[in-house]
Amino acid sequence: MTAPTIPGYRYGDPALPAPPIDAAGLRDLFAACLLSDEDLAALREAAPIIEPQVEAILDTWYGFVGSHPFLLAAFSTSEGPDQRYLAAVRARFGQWIRDTLRADYDARWAAYQLEVGRRHAAAKGRTDGVAGTPEVVPFRHVVALVVPITATMRPFLAKGARDAEHLERMHQAWVKAVVLSVALWSAAYVREGWW
Amino acid sequence: MTAPTIPGYRYGDPALPAPPIDAAGLRDLFAACLLSDEDLAALREAAPIIEPQVEAILDTWYGFVGSHPFLLAAFSTSEGPDQRYLAAVRARFGQWIRDTLRADYDARWAAYQLEVGRRHAAAKGRTDGVAGTPEVVPFRHVVALVVPITATMRPFLAKGARDAEHLERMHQAWVKAVVLSVALWSAAYVREGWW
Repeated sequence: MTAPTIPGYRYGDPALPAPPIDAAGLRDLFAACLLSDEDLAALREAAPIIEPQVEAILDTWYGFVGSHPFLLAAFSTSEGPDQRYLAAVRARFGQWIRDTLRADYDARWAAYQLEVGRRHAAAKGRTDGVAGTPEVVPFRHVVALVVPITATMRPFLAKGARDAEHLERMHQAWVKAVVLSVALWSAAYVREGWW
Repeated sequence: MTAPTIPGYRYGDPALPAPPIDAAGLRDLFAACLLSDEDLAALREAAPIIEPQVEAILDTWYGFVGSHPFLLAAFSTSEGPDQRYLAAVRARFGQWIRDTLRADYDARWAAYQLEVGRRHAAAKGRTDGVAGTPEVVPFRHVVALVVPITATMRPFLAKGARDAEHLERMHQAWVKAVVLSVALWSAAYVREGWW
């Protein structure tokens, strides 16, 4: 679960603020998005299928972002896309895929998801020492990206699925995990007391 | 597209505030969640399948909410669930299903989705003259409910789908439309300038 060689990666860092919901609140959130122990098991089954394909998946997602100027804008200064910034985020994005497949979905995991949310909202770019890019990723785009982040995963899962049922089970678990991640990321964006 | 007999239903009301994004911004949002003209066509194909089943779908969703106290809380006062409030919201929720299948996905439609978002955030219950229930639906639950609102739709679509491909096409279009709705609803929750 640790990957200390990725700059800015803080999963498990005890210095991160605790999540604003306790264990019961986290369980309620899992229930609201139908995430069960069977889904966590399906994610772990997906891990060895997906892990060798992480770079190809990131190529797909970065291709999508790169082909939409309004998305690429988040990584761009007045001089155009910041390649160093794109690369730094990419390393953590890849690790987020791995973590989402193998995490324990506990307070430690939630604390880092909240940190990921903060980095998309206020002071975006601070982690990577980037200046001149937009201050935030607009939240409406964060929500919308649930669709490409889930739809594009299916063919990668299909490469290692035993059958259609296995594929469906792994894919649905992935959908739930991504929606759950966005629910946690949103905490940084939402007005005081409304999250 | 009009259903003037539903109290509080304001789709098409010119007095609603205009969306904070223009037509180009709306098109970008559709692109971010992969919503295409083919998806809008698939939603219209789904309409005659789903429309006769709206009450059964609402029974499923209300059964889900009713079985989770932390969700039912949004409809409850100190004296328990407010049946009149549950019924008033239910009528508009059913109309939201119909609208999501047949809407033009234009500024008028977006303006009402933003109003729906406002009603989940500040001054929840004002539309129905309800007092004593929580002021907001916690936003983390709004995001998480994308999963049940999409997963439970599949068997209802299956009843009228021509084949597996037709079912998949209609279901994926529904998933995109729900994610898009949540992206618009979120505007009322997000801090100034971060939406």
